Amino acid sequence: MDEERTEAWWGRRAWALLSAVRERAPLVQCITNLVSMDIAANALTAAGASPAMLHCLREIPDFTPRCDAVYINVGTLSEDWLPSMRAAASAGRPWVLDPVAVAASGFRMEACLQLLALRPAVVRGNASEILALASSSDSSSSSFKGVDSSHDSGEALQASKALARSSGAVVAVSGAVDFITDGEQVVSASNGVALMQKITATGCAVTALIAAFVGADPSDALAATACALAIFGLAGEIGMESAKGPASLRMHLIDALYGLDEQTVTSGVKIALVL
Amino acid sequence: MDEERTEAWWGRRAWALLSAVRERAPLVQCITNLVSMDIAANALTAAGASPAMLHCLREIPDFTPRCDAVYINVGTLSEDWLPSMRAAASAGRPWVLDPVAVAASGFRMEACLQLLALRPAVVRGNASEILALASSSDSSSSSFKGVDSSHDSGEALQASKALARSSGAVVAVSGAVDFITDGEQVVSASNGVALMQKITATGCAVTALIAAFVGADPSDALAATACALAIFGLAGEIGMESAKGPASLRMHLIDALYGLDEQTVTSGVKIALVL
Amino acid sequence: MDEERTEAWWGRRAWALLSAVRERAPLVQCITNLVSMDIAANALTAAGASPAMLHCLREIPDFTPRCDAVYINVGTLSEDWLPSMRAAASAGRPWVLDPVAVAASGFRMEACLQLLALRPAVVRGNASEILALASSSDSSSSSFKGVDSSHDSGEALQASKALARSSGAVVAVSGAVDFITDGEQVVSASNGVALMQKITATGCAVTALIAAFVGADPSDALAATACALAIFGLAGEIGMESAKGPASLRMHLIDALYGLDEQTVTSGVKIALVL
Repeated sequence: MDEERTEAWWGRRAWALLSAVRERAPLVQCITNLVSMDIAANALTAAGASPAMLHCLREIPDFTPRCDAVYINVGTLSEDWLPSMRAAASAGRPWVLDPVAVAASGFRMEACLQLLALRPAVVRGNASEILALASSSDSSSSSFKGVDSSHDSGEALQASKALARSSGAVVAVSGAVDFITDGEQVVSASNGVALMQKITATGCAVTALIAAFVGADPSDALAATACALAIFGLAGEIGMESAKGPASLRMHLIDALYGLDEQTVTSGVKIALVL
Repeated sequence: MDEERTEAWWGRRAWALLSAVRERAPLVQCITNLVSMDIAANALTAAGASPAMLHCLREIPDFTPRCDAVYINVGTLSEDWLPSMRAAASAGRPWVLDPVAVAASGFRMEACLQLLALRPAVVRGNASEILALASSSDSSSSSFKGVDSSHDSGEALQASKALARSSGAVVAVSGAVDFITDGEQVVSASNGVALMQKITATGCAVTALIAAFVGADPSDALAATACALAIFGLAGEIGMESAKGPASLRMHLIDALYGLDEQTVTSGVKIALVL
Repeated sequence: MDEERTEAWWGRRAWALLSAVRERAPLVQCITNLVSMDIAANALTAAGASPAMLHCLREIPDFTPRCDAVYINVGTLSEDWLPSMRAAASAGRPWVLDPVAVAASGFRMEACLQLLALRPAVVRGNASEILALASSSDSSSSSFKGVDSSHDSGEALQASKALARSSGAVVAVSGAVDFITDGEQVVSASNGVALMQKITATGCAVTALIAAFVGADPSDALAATACALAIFGLAGEIGMESAKGPASLRMHLIDALYGLDEQTVTSGVKIALVL
């Protein structure tokens, strides 16, 4: 890096990226799970992006090339959606993969490995998911339990670097602290509050936001990913000030994401170079 | 028209229609996109209607004839849902079409044109969608960008009149001001707040509400459409008084829709004859 | 029963079960309707369970055996999901059926009867649904209207006992008062507020919660069902203190479910032996 990437530098970068999303309103095609569509679309809209939930194989040749980014999430995978996922991932647009519960089945692992071969710009998961994907572990050897993470994100750091190098993608591991790596550099993003884990599909929503940031500025996927994660977490911190539980946190988080201003972002995001 | 349709007349009409929805609880079958199901069902329920999200082709012969209205929305179109859409549209019940992102693909345009031939009572879209549908423009000539409107609703007025005449449907163009036409008369509905655009699927939800109003009183689809649009916008105005962003607006809007009383409706709806 | 099941006994039992859910975080596979996924997943998460919306037939052999319970809901039934429902119901885990709108079509009734033959631990519906299922009435003779209940839950009491005996399942009939029976005993659960009926898919959400409670303690499905119903209703009562309409009630209910403490539960649940 030519310039020193201090926390203040990251604050300015995060604001610049959020401003780019608001200004350019990147069109983000989402082929995502049925549970997360509402929160993902609303998070994208609140951030300034233009979501398009579109999964029909027949529409992809016309539609996907016009998109700024593509978001693919296997949370409620089905056989009939897989060809659409592969087609959208192959359409030449930067795309982001969320390998939700990748170890839930051999079928899902195989699907994710096939998608991974289509070179996503970014892969984001929790530690369990990234570990499973990195080791290509089959379901019998996995300690997978649900879609919640049962590993610490730090544990998955080495696995994520290996995965980044083998796949060519930026890999993000979400946890109390998020780690983002391109296989060489590792950056941490430390925003967020624990209660966000109690809102279904916050992980899916933040991966959608990563796609929007990559769509607004595809030149540096690592920075886009770190800033999207930090900004979403920051919105959670602000939301937490008014929340009385997971459902009100969800509402206040989306409101906060919509209302973020320069001062709040530049002083609030906590991103640091780890190594 | 035999009587003068003043703003006060429209206020009374809107209240009468909302009261009819609450009293008769019209059963509205919705074949709608995966993103909007939650907000559409909750908006219908809050207004007093009885939503039924049912898209299985095998069930339509038994179920659809019992419905008061049908709502079809192509937002997350897929090939396997299209036969159900066509069957439900052909079941002899009044039905309403929301041609979400009609220009997203040639496949979607073709699907919408086929549905249009099955004579919906109402078609509601934003200006881009109505313009695209009216001109049957193919995807290559379209300036379509996402599901958000990039045209003013006024621009689409001539297109909507042509579309109403050719299709036999009442056509509504949503925007800062909504225009509703049967091809001859044009009525405007001016309720609502800009922040509603930042809630995903408000357009889908209000089209569902139009179906409920048409189901409660199929005798005048133009009035039902104008009143549903105005009442939904009015609920947004009331919700806005308590909102701090798009997510809290969504909540307050649904609460307000549920709580609307006669005084608020009769004095609050802004509907006028344009020409 | 060896001990007297007083209201105080039920209060302690409900707290013990909720504590077990929070501690063991039962993994609940949900094959549920497209409208209810968001609220069901968030209710499960708020209660401490681990939801997994997974409906792909290819994944069921790997995934379902690892689950603590399975929840199947036919609200947006489609032909292609039915084999997954049957496979998951046959995987040897305790499972719960929500026969939403069972009389909507002959196809749906047939599907529910087939599922019922796969021996659910619990069936929960409103009075109309339980009556229809018990009488295996075909759609032509049914008075079904939408997914809302048009019968009182008391009316369905005899039908539910017969259904429980013939199916071997615990049967719960939701209403102003819920009745739960194993065919011999009948227990009532009287928590809840009327406005919960105006939130889409509260019935689906509480059935998911029943599955979590059964998953946390499969030894007594009748007690698990009664306690889940009472606790969800109690969360609604607490939520109602802050609610201004159905949408804010939904939020406050989920927040309250997350925050329930021992004192509130033991003193608040209203469960009684009816006969």
